[in-house]
Order: sequence, then C-alpha cells, then structure tokens
Amino acid sequence: MRVMIIGAAGMLGAKLSKQIAAGAVPGATELTLVDRVAPDPVTSVTCTSHAADLGAPGTAEELAALKPDLVFHLAAVVSGQAEAEFDTGYAVNLDASRALFEALRASGTQPRVIFASSLAVYGPPFPDVVPEDFGLRPASSYGTQKAMTELLLADYSRKGFLRGTSLRLPTVSIRPGLPNAAASGFLSGILREPLVGQTANCPVPDDTKVWIASPDITVAGLAHAAALPWEHIAPHPVLNLRGICVSVGEMLATLEAEAGADARALVTHDPDPAIARIVQSWPEAFVTDTAEALGFPVNGGFASILREYQAEFAAAP
Amino acid sequence: MRVMIIGAAGMLGAKLSKQIAAGAVPGATELTLVDRVAPDPVTSVTCTSHAADLGAPGTAEELAALKPDLVFHLAAVVSGQAEAEFDTGYAVNLDASRALFEALRASGTQPRVIFASSLAVYGPPFPDVVPEDFGLRPASSYGTQKAMTELLLADYSRKGFLRGTSLRLPTVSIRPGLPNAAASGFLSGILREPLVGQTANCPVPDDTKVWIASPDITVAGLAHAAALPWEHIAPHPVLNLRGICVSVGEMLATLEAEAGADARALVTHDPDPAIARIVQSWPEAFVTDTAEALGFPVNGGFASILREYQAEFAAAP
Repeated sequence: MRVMIIGAAGMLGAKLSKQIAAGAVPGATELTLVDRVAPDPVTSVTCTSHAADLGAPGTAEELAALKPDLVFHLAAVVSGQAEAEFDTGYAVNLDASRALFEALRASGTQPRVIFASSLAVYGPPFPDVVPEDFGLRPASSYGTQKAMTELLLADYSRKGFLRGTSLRLPTVSIRPGLPNAAASGFLSGILREPLVGQTANCPVPDDTKVWIASPDITVAGLAHAAALPWEHIAPHPVLNLRGICVSVGEMLATLEAEAGADARALVTHDPDPAIARIVQSWPEAFVTDTAEALGFPVNGGFASILREYQAEFAAAP
Repeated sequence: MRVMIIGAAGMLGAKLSKQIAAGAVPGATELTLVDRVAPDPVTSVTCTSHAADLGAPGTAEELAALKPDLVFHLAAVVSGQAEAEFDTGYAVNLDASRALFEALRASGTQPRVIFASSLAVYGPPFPDVVPEDFGLRPASSYGTQKAMTELLLADYSRKGFLRGTSLRLPTVSIRPGLPNAAASGFLSGILREPLVGQTANCPVPDDTKVWIASPDITVAGLAHAAALPWEHIAPHPVLNLRGICVSVGEMLATLEAEAGADARALVTHDPDPAIARIVQSWPEAFVTDTAEALGFPVNGGFASILREYQAEFAAAP
C-alpha cells in the first residue's frame, strides 16, 4: 500500500512517518513524504521525500499521479497566521485542500484520505461537555477553513470520489521544541522548560481546564483511523479524537510528583488576561463515544503524558 | 439606500422585489434586480434590471461596483441539479457566492448581505426538535455548499469585510406555478391543484410532519433581517427562520375546511416510498427562539397559509 503524508515535516507529520515505518498502518509498503521543505526520510519502508507546495498550480495533480492508496493531509497554515493573513489562510487551508481532493477525484482511485482538522471549528458559547452533534461556529478564519474542508471532504466521500475522514485533534501537549507564540504554547512550556531546569510562566489560573492529548496518542489516532476497515469508519466522516480533560493545576502537581518540587518552583504565575480569555473560551471536554467505540486510543492520564515526553525528549538532561 | 437582489427572477426574489417596492425595507430608495434572465422591474422605487451570471468572470466585480448598501443573495442551483451536476453546483453555489463576497470586500463599503441558506445543511439523525446549536451534517452537495457559504459569510463578517446574515429557510408552501420534480413538490401540489379543481397525489402517510412557511412570511423574514439594526443581528451570523410544524393530514383537513369536501376528494393517496423516505428524513421542527426574540414573523397556522395563497393566486378560479 502506497501511503502519502502531506505536511510530513511538521511535528505530527514527522512522528507519523516514524510510526508508519514502525508498522502503525498494516500493509504500508511505500511512504511518500511531502512538505514545502523536503522532510527527512524514514527507513524500514521504501520512502521518498518531496519538497512541494500543495497550493502551487499542478502540485496536487503531480501528487495524485503517484496513485497513493492512503493520504494523510496535515498541511496547514496555523491559526495565528491564518488570522493575520486572510488570503493566505484560505489559499492554503481551503483552496489547496480542495485542489488535492479534486486531483484525487480525477485520478479515479478512491484513496483513503485522513484530514487533520481542529477543535477550532467550534466557538463559544459551549456547554461544559460538548456533544458529538454540536454546531459549527468557528471564531477564527482557521476554524472556518477547517470546517469548510471537513464539509467538502465529507461530500467528496458521500459521492464516492474518495474515502475521507476528518479527525478533530485535541490540543497537543507536551510539544517538544522551542516556545512559540501560540496562546496554547504554555500548555507545553510549563512542563517542557522546568524539565530541563528552565523557568516558564503559567498565564492562567490553576483551575483552568483544557482538553489535551499527547503527540504519540494523537499520531496513533491518525494511524488508527487509516487502519480501520473503511466500512467501520465510513458512517463517521468527521470524528472528535479522544482527549483528557485536565486542569493546569493537575498538570503542575504531576510535574512536581514526577520531577520534584524544584522543577515546579521554576513555574511562575504571572497572569496574562489576553491568553486566559482565549484559553478559557475553548471547550474543556468533549463527548467522544464514537471514537471510543471505534477503538481510538486515549492517554491514561497526565502522568503518562509527562512520562511519554520524558522518555522521548528529556531522558538525558 | 441602494438594495440589490441577486436571483431576483425566482419565486422568492420576485416577491421580495415587490415587498421592497411596497416599503418592506425602510429607506430603500434604489433597487437593482439581477438574475441570469433580466427580472421584471418593479415600480415605486428607482429600479434597474440586469441579466448577469454571478459565476461568470467579472460579474461579481461589476455588481460590487454599483456600491449596494444591502445585497440579498438568493441565486442558487437547486438541490436536484447540484446533486446531478457536482461541478456546476460548487461553481454556482459556492464559488460564485465567494466571488460576490470577495468583490464586496474589495469595494470597502461593508454592505449588509442577506444570504438565503437552507435546512439542507442538516442531515439525519435528528432529534424530534432540532436545537439551534445542532451540528452541520449535510446529506447532499447542495446542503454542503450552503453550509460552506454560511461559514464563509460569517468569517467575512467577523473580519469586518461586510455585514452578513445567513437565513435558513423552511420548506416554502404553498408555492404557485406548475408541479415540479422536487421531493417536496407535493407539499404545494396537494393544495394548489385541488383549489383549481385538479387532482393531486399525496405520496406520504397523513401523519408525516413537515416544517413550512408561506412565501409571504418567508420573504417578510428576509426583509425583516435587512431592516433590523445591525448590532441586533450581528451576534447571530446564521439563523433558522421561523416555520410551523404541520402534518400532511392537518394540511388536507384545512383544505377541506376552507374549500370543501369536493376539493379534498381530488387528493389521491398513492404511496411513493422513495419520496416518503426523503421527506421523512427531514427534521419536523426547529427551536427558533433567537428568530422569535428578534421579531421575525411566523405563520399563524396552516389555515392562514392557505388563505394567503387563495388571496393571491386562487381568488378568481
């Protein structure tokens, strides 16, 4: 089976590439990695790496001509950029996705397509726990583009042009790497930085609850969707992936339990009302009965998320 | 105030033109009617009529150059055609709408835009009464295109490029004119035909419930949205218009009460499982608290809908 990952140079794409090379999607024999800069190839399977801009004329057709049986579409302009650059956001997040679906339709091969969507398709006001049939009311251009692409993919699937599934990812924590300017960045930073002896600020009250999944579980969810028999997942063109609802206070208590009081003491509490307002406008928890019934994985708790991060990135401080 | 109606040659567009000429939108002094065939002009206000295809290159820009203060966007390929002609449906219902929004954005005038959307944005399974925050799960390309356009218009409004409102219309009954092939066609035909002494078939059981509004109330709803102060309607970029939930049996009992047993006897009951399946897959009723709070009109009952039709079309049989 030929597998293609578009957006393979990103954090999730790189991890997915490795998981597939390690057998996460049974039957995957060839792997094509695509991003605007050529992604690092992985071993264990036949792997080719392409530098290509999905939004450039002809790119979608060139990728479809490779006849992938399974496409992971992770490429996107992130929310901050989509909000600041309106036309770029629509060009990349909507138009390039549509060009991909259209090229795959024209290829006539009905590939499976796994599209990484986002909880940004929702907007306030929310109930405490968001039901699976809750309305789409995005509060950002990014969320609008993800919602429109979900709808488009579902229609292409309904018509039999391809076999698509949109997965709405929880906030991913703990992200490796450097701090970034995302409003959610501190949800990784307040763990990642203290684990290597650096300070980090927590800009929200300790009782702030968030909906998160670890990088490994998130990527395992993408692979699980691809590995499910089509007839099992076809009735669910859009799925909320499983996450855990955890308060920032619980995250910090876990940090102390796992890495000691010294580590926790590196976290400052300088309130940032702007960030608090954004983060508190996100839903705290979702019903994910469908994903559970389909066997999608979930983190066992925040301690296991912290240990996953330590095992991979902080093993040798 | 310059008002533009795109799709002004249709049943609702023509009626809206007349209602605006009669004062339904206070301050409307100029009316520009647009459709692929030039609509009939109306009197009482300065009125111009244009034959133009919104999907043709340059048309959206030409219309935006007229600097309308208020645009009713009613133009669409209907559901049957959108399902049969996939590319045409997206070109007209999505791309042409986007071209219009983009041209209005470029004009820098922030016009009010009233977009006629549809309950086809919803798909089964439904609760008995669909709540206002129910998810979008269209079961047709038409519904997908309407949902995508709603999302797009809301994002353009959120960004301040224009001031848009999407209104989801109930099934419109009683439609004048000839029978058509729409699955919902009988919901007009079983009244319209007997009122002029012709037979009509009812293909569904009498206890089938539907969500309807009369043509006058539907058009009054479009005009009401435009006449509301922007700050009142801005928080609600998408609204379900008010309808009434009525069974087919109640519709026929009203026909008998208003037009006699002879009229009702002209209705045959030859079941059509295909039509029954489609109609019974539609929601029976919606929560419309927001539209009610905003003062949108609603029919008083099916008898008033029948009398409205008789007064306009069947006065002189």
